[in-house]
Amino acid sequence: MFAGIAASPGIAIGKVLKLQEVDLTYDKIEINKEEVENEKDRFHQTIKETKEQLQAIKDRAERELGADKAEIFQAHLLVLEDPELINRVENKIEEELQSAEASLEAVVQMFVTTFSNLEDEYMQERAADIQDVGTRILKNLLGIEIKSLAEIDEPVILMARDLTPSDTAQIDKGKVLGFATEAGGRTSHTAIMARSLEIPSVVGLGDILAKTKKGDKVIVDALNGKLIINPTSKELAKYEAKKEEYAKRKEELAELKNLPAETKDGHRVEVAANIGTPKDVPGVLRNGGEGIGLYRTEFLYMDRKSLPTEEEQFNAYKEISKKLENRPVIIRTLDIGGDKELSYLDLPEEMNPFLGYRAIRICLDRPDIFKTQLRAILRASAYGNIKIMYPMISSIEELRAANAVLEEVKTDLKEEEVEFDEELEVGMMMEVPAAAMTADILAKEADFFSIGTNDLIQYTTAVDRMNENISKLYKPFHPAILRLIKRIIDAAHKENKWVGMCGEMAGDARLAPVLLGFGLDEFSMSAISIPEVKEIIRSLTLTQTEEIADDVLQLETAAEIIEYLDDKLE
Amino acid sequence: MFAGIAASPGIAIGKVLKLQEVDLTYDKIEINKEEVENEKDRFHQTIKETKEQLQAIKDRAERELGADKAEIFQAHLLVLEDPELINRVENKIEEELQSAEASLEAVVQMFVTTFSNLEDEYMQERAADIQDVGTRILKNLLGIEIKSLAEIDEPVILMARDLTPSDTAQIDKGKVLGFATEAGGRTSHTAIMARSLEIPSVVGLGDILAKTKKGDKVIVDALNGKLIINPTSKELAKYEAKKEEYAKRKEELAELKNLPAETKDGHRVEVAANIGTPKDVPGVLRNGGEGIGLYRTEFLYMDRKSLPTEEEQFNAYKEISKKLENRPVIIRTLDIGGDKELSYLDLPEEMNPFLGYRAIRICLDRPDIFKTQLRAILRASAYGNIKIMYPMISSIEELRAANAVLEEVKTDLKEEEVEFDEELEVGMMMEVPAAAMTADILAKEADFFSIGTNDLIQYTTAVDRMNENISKLYKPFHPAILRLIKRIIDAAHKENKWVGMCGEMAGDARLAPVLLGFGLDEFSMSAISIPEVKEIIRSLTLTQTEEIADDVLQLETAAEIIEYLDDKLE
Repeated sequence: MFAGIAASPGIAIGKVLKLQEVDLTYDKIEINKEEVENEKDRFHQTIKETKEQLQAIKDRAERELGADKAEIFQAHLLVLEDPELINRVENKIEEELQSAEASLEAVVQMFVTTFSNLEDEYMQERAADIQDVGTRILKNLLGIEIKSLAEIDEPVILMARDLTPSDTAQIDKGKVLGFATEAGGRTSHTAIMARSLEIPSVVGLGDILAKTKKGDKVIVDALNGKLIINPTSKELAKYEAKKEEYAKRKEELAELKNLPAETKDGHRVEVAANIGTPKDVPGVLRNGGEGIGLYRTEFLYMDRKSLPTEEEQFNAYKEISKKLENRPVIIRTLDIGGDKELSYLDLPEEMNPFLGYRAIRICLDRPDIFKTQLRAILRASAYGNIKIMYPMISSIEELRAANAVLEEVKTDLKEEEVEFDEELEVGMMMEVPAAAMTADILAKEADFFSIGTNDLIQYTTAVDRMNENISKLYKPFHPAILRLIKRIIDAAHKENKWVGMCGEMAGDARLAPVLLGFGLDEFSMSAISIPEVKEIIRSLTLTQTEEIADDVLQLETAAEIIEYLDDKLE
Repeated sequence: MFAGIAASPGIAIGKVLKLQEVDLTYDKIEINKEEVENEKDRFHQTIKETKEQLQAIKDRAERELGADKAEIFQAHLLVLEDPELINRVENKIEEELQSAEASLEAVVQMFVTTFSNLEDEYMQERAADIQDVGTRILKNLLGIEIKSLAEIDEPVILMARDLTPSDTAQIDKGKVLGFATEAGGRTSHTAIMARSLEIPSVVGLGDILAKTKKGDKVIVDALNGKLIINPTSKELAKYEAKKEEYAKRKEELAELKNLPAETKDGHRVEVAANIGTPKDVPGVLRNGGEGIGLYRTEFLYMDRKSLPTEEEQFNAYKEISKKLENRPVIIRTLDIGGDKELSYLDLPEEMNPFLGYRAIRICLDRPDIFKTQLRAILRASAYGNIKIMYPMISSIEELRAANAVLEEVKTDLKEEEVEFDEELEVGMMMEVPAAAMTADILAKEADFFSIGTNDLIQYTTAVDRMNENISKLYKPFHPAILRLIKRIIDAAHKENKWVGMCGEMAGDARLAPVLLGFGLDEFSMSAISIPEVKEIIRSLTLTQTEEIADDVLQLETAAEIIEYLDDKLE
């Protein structure tokens, strides 16, 4: 039995198919000046070959698995055209006299390191994409044949060191029962894709490939993060029962997923989802999301060479709000900078990017960028139930400054006789402690708040949540955090404004009763968490949750709070 | 007339002495393999020569200006022995085939950039020291003669591009009436030294050297940050009057500096000073400081190759508390990490060092370091009025963990029959928002709080105060900050604990009435600010300050608060 990290819940039992890594080492590292042209030619030739290969895979994926699955290969094709990548490799060949292989690997590694240090799931995905394309080019440079996952013909448990985006994009859900990988954590590409595909998966299992052979029977226990190789018949029976139980549980959740998020005594809240691109919408609807509580617009600005036009943005916003029919869609304005870079904006390097020039701070300095986005959102608001939300507001002055720009844009649109929703709500993220401490002042001028717990925890506890040296100090259940949340909700309700939450805490089932008890009006989370949170909400009365909330506020440490809630929800 | 930054208050009128920079350019950059040994010899020879030079200057400074002034040259001699510096230069010569000059400059620049990016005045000083020694070595390599400031024989206004630590250390206060420099800001070495020497100075004046000649009459208006070259007789008369007025004002302040910090209606608070080394103590006593509210112990750990021993620390703590007689001395335990590095500790590189592994977080992981310091402090407590303060506490668990280590150390000392103050107070910095939000919980187990406003503002507003792109967002008067301060004080008083403040806000005269009105018990600041803060405190009644505090809490923006206070204190 091996212990790993449960990345996507469920239990899978089946035969192993190992995805073996091929040898990617090479001897040629340094070259002579005379070889420069030859290496550059070889590199360009390989880029061309890789393009043709990807185009073919994309076409087949489109035919066999649908347009959604094929999209990733479009992103990969864009990486192949990225001058940042191409030019850097060329420079390395020319100036540092490194072989095409060595130059490519160094440049890819630089990009991957940069992106994988970032907070966001989307940035992690992007790092995985670049790594994937990089490996594909390297294989082609080395003349290694690339096998396809689309050719699996019987149900298997896929076992690998790690899965790449092009692996997962070729997976047929009918054929792959589960994943078990040696590498990876909860935010690795494999984990993210496993959740999105809803395939039971355990990652970070360590040295498992050497311990199995093709056709071995294994159990992937992705409820407890375990892998059992060649189970006994007793184990097999036990897990078959567990699997059935889990399927029943999933069915129960599926039944209630479209029911309202309402307490036993009839207090109704909204349960919505956080998304990054239009392609996330089907998952939201499938899981019973009642709207989009956070649409991160950063993705529109990435993987490209210049800012997206008003028209491109308008189309994306319109597409999403149309897909959501009349459900609310909260569009967060650009939250770039700090850890999320856009090479074409040429933002300054900073010593503490999380405490730096980012989000609304950049937008207020760059009305060209900000106005274009606001115009696109306003125009789209004529086609659905759209709300605007500003990130990183830290004072009433900033909120006023942002609203002043919005008013200018509205005036322009009126003059141009362009339609938009004149009643559109305009709110702000509550993620800076200074905003939380002045929520009463801000509530007078914002239509709603959405609590961004990831940053709020980070700033309040002075803990970079990506920093492994202090990860044990990143405490969502810190009494200070719960008090700030209560403070924000009380201040907003006093002004008859509603409060949502779009940080990871909103999807934590243990915390739902506390947040309900505090009076939270909207919970926005990863689509996959929606059914469970709805279930908890529907199992309690508002009075019960208020008692729980009161109790929790009396406790002095995060550990005591977690213990209390675990006890309560057992 | 030129506008600059007033670095040290006052008015000086006198004749110019220009400190001209010499040409430090050189042609020799790349060398052949055959020249490596020669360049290394040249470098070592110059290091030896520079040592002899510095030793001679140090001896003369000791004789003519006193031991305090000579100390800096001891620090410079240590830089010359630093293997980090010597080895890196050697490596550059050997491996990159760079000349001694080019290698030295690159290495010095690397160190200076690292240090000058740091928050602390002491780190800025250290950057200035390394730059200074580096320039001295370079001059010696180039065979340039170095002139001495100790030879000034009539009162002058010193004008330079910038002043180096070895310049300022050779200054005779009787001979230098004022400084005017082209470069520098409020935390540059020149500014810090000007304040410490109490010489009126304007820095950051731009291109002034080319516009004056030796013997020109100038006025340094360091009240308004101006320089007037060859003033008219009318201007001269006006500034003579201003100078006299300022001298009178200074005398008034001098008169009250030893009076208690007591409101008109008899509410007494303590006004103390922040210090970094024992050599800061005379300035504290000269300005009427009633104790040390913050002794930053980091300096003991710097400029060396390994951790300071218990004995070295014990001697430093004992020396300071003896010098203070029975006045309280609050020793803050090691606040290293994040932006302040110690090369011998080999701390990890971090993406957001301010939100990283620092201060108590390191000490709790490294009981060897922490216990040594606590033992030294406890032992010194037998000789004076010492208190301990932990930095960066973010939760009650951390406070308990730190206190547990302290208890262990106390038990050890008792077993060894070593004396210490068994009643010694143990408090904590209030600088993390999470601590401020749970001050009621922490107040039960801490003997006192000291509010560290620099970090508290940084975390609460999510603004790195060193980041120039967002410096306008770093707002000490943000309503959120004032509310947090009030919250901390109220929580402590409820448990009968006292509250001090050792961030820069404590020395801001505009804010003193608000802090008094909130009930702050101790104000700790740069020694130079003490008389003015005492004056304000003595000019008001507690009732008046409470009204001011109430009014301020009603305001919505930092700008409104500043305007209100400026009005009130006019």
